Amino acid sequence: MKRVIVATGNKGKIVEIKSIVNDPEVEVLSMKEAGIEADIVEDGKSFEDNAIIKARAVWEICHELVLADDSGLEVDALNKEPGIYSARYMGEETPYSIKNADIIKRLEGVPDEKRTGRFVCAVAAVLPDGEEIIVTKTMEGRIGYEERGTNGFGYDPIFLPDGYNCSSGELPMEEKNLISHRGKAFRRMWEILAKLDAK
Amino acid sequence: MKRVIVATGNKGKIVEIKSIVNDPEVEVLSMKEAGIEADIVEDGKSFEDNAIIKARAVWEICHELVLADDSGLEVDALNKEPGIYSARYMGEETPYSIKNADIIKRLEGVPDEKRTGRFVCAVAAVLPDGEEIIVTKTMEGRIGYEERGTNGFGYDPIFLPDGYNCSSGELPMEEKNLISHRGKAFRRMWEILAKLDAK
Repeated sequence: MKRVIVATGNKGKIVEIKSIVNDPEVEVLSMKEAGIEADIVEDGKSFEDNAIIKARAVWEICHELVLADDSGLEVDALNKEPGIYSARYMGEETPYSIKNADIIKRLEGVPDEKRTGRFVCAVAAVLPDGEEIIVTKTMEGRIGYEERGTNGFGYDPIFLPDGYNCSSGELPMEEKNLISHRGKAFRRMWEILAKLDAK
Repeated sequence: MKRVIVATGNKGKIVEIKSIVNDPEVEVLSMKEAGIEADIVEDGKSFEDNAIIKARAVWEICHELVLADDSGLEVDALNKEPGIYSARYMGEETPYSIKNADIIKRLEGVPDEKRTGRFVCAVAAVLPDGEEIIVTKTMEGRIGYEERGTNGFGYDPIFLPDGYNCSSGELPMEEKNLISHRGKAFRRMWEILAKLDAK
């Protein structure tokens, strides 16, 4: 049985990644399931940096195949804020309803065509021999005028993906995973690892 | 004919990459050959960041497949200096004979087993649709006590690759490319792009 350790404490992510990998020969483990504790300081300057910092920190302990991601929302009219600070925006503990209201307020008077933005996800892999591969994917869209929908989490309720007449918080989870930054980045990474026979 | 633009002004790199790609169906072009001018500020915090900053800046102009790399030397006993500042260490115009002498001086009294370090190379690709892939490879070794050899460039004369009884400045170019951080990273990236049929 091959193993891949995902450098996250987020159970939702583990479930999502297991469904992407979907290979009976591969065991997907969270850090906790692998018995790994790491105190990780995400002090990178980009999504790619933070993803590789997380993956590398766990690899240093186990020297197995490790995956990690870093994600966030870039709003063009806000100079790409909150960006890599998406989770920390207005404080880590602040509810997203407040963060979302704040972003909508800051966009008051900004017309539709300038409300563009994107979710970004960088997925980093560190292979057992230490090689690093990073894949970055986006979901392009616009910022709405109010929260809509209760699916998803974070900034989903105010994000309107291109080509859809609803927010990503209104999409069923399976449909969202097909078009989401994180779904696309993890699927692409898994495709690369499979083709390199590195999984 | 497929095209790949390499985000560099360095002719040596173009020659090296052409020999790695080595595919009559693929045309490898420097920025100049592709008629692209870009003023790129490498203000990233990691090799990966700087490589993707360069590739992304050129992709914004041409929307074709773009490759870029960022490389440097990490010396463990110097807290991984000069790292991403390898080219800028002591000033961009300072000859490497002076930079190399400075590093050897700073390692005075440091015993063999603590003179470890590595060359690191991050290669970034931006695909025509904007997808980003980054691969990082290293060449592990130790810092010597004097400059040796006139092949290679930069820090090569003071770097002793693991498993070799000479500096990387004493290795013939072809042999160095087989084990070098840059050779390995570009070959691996090309392997990935070929397997994804993205080249």
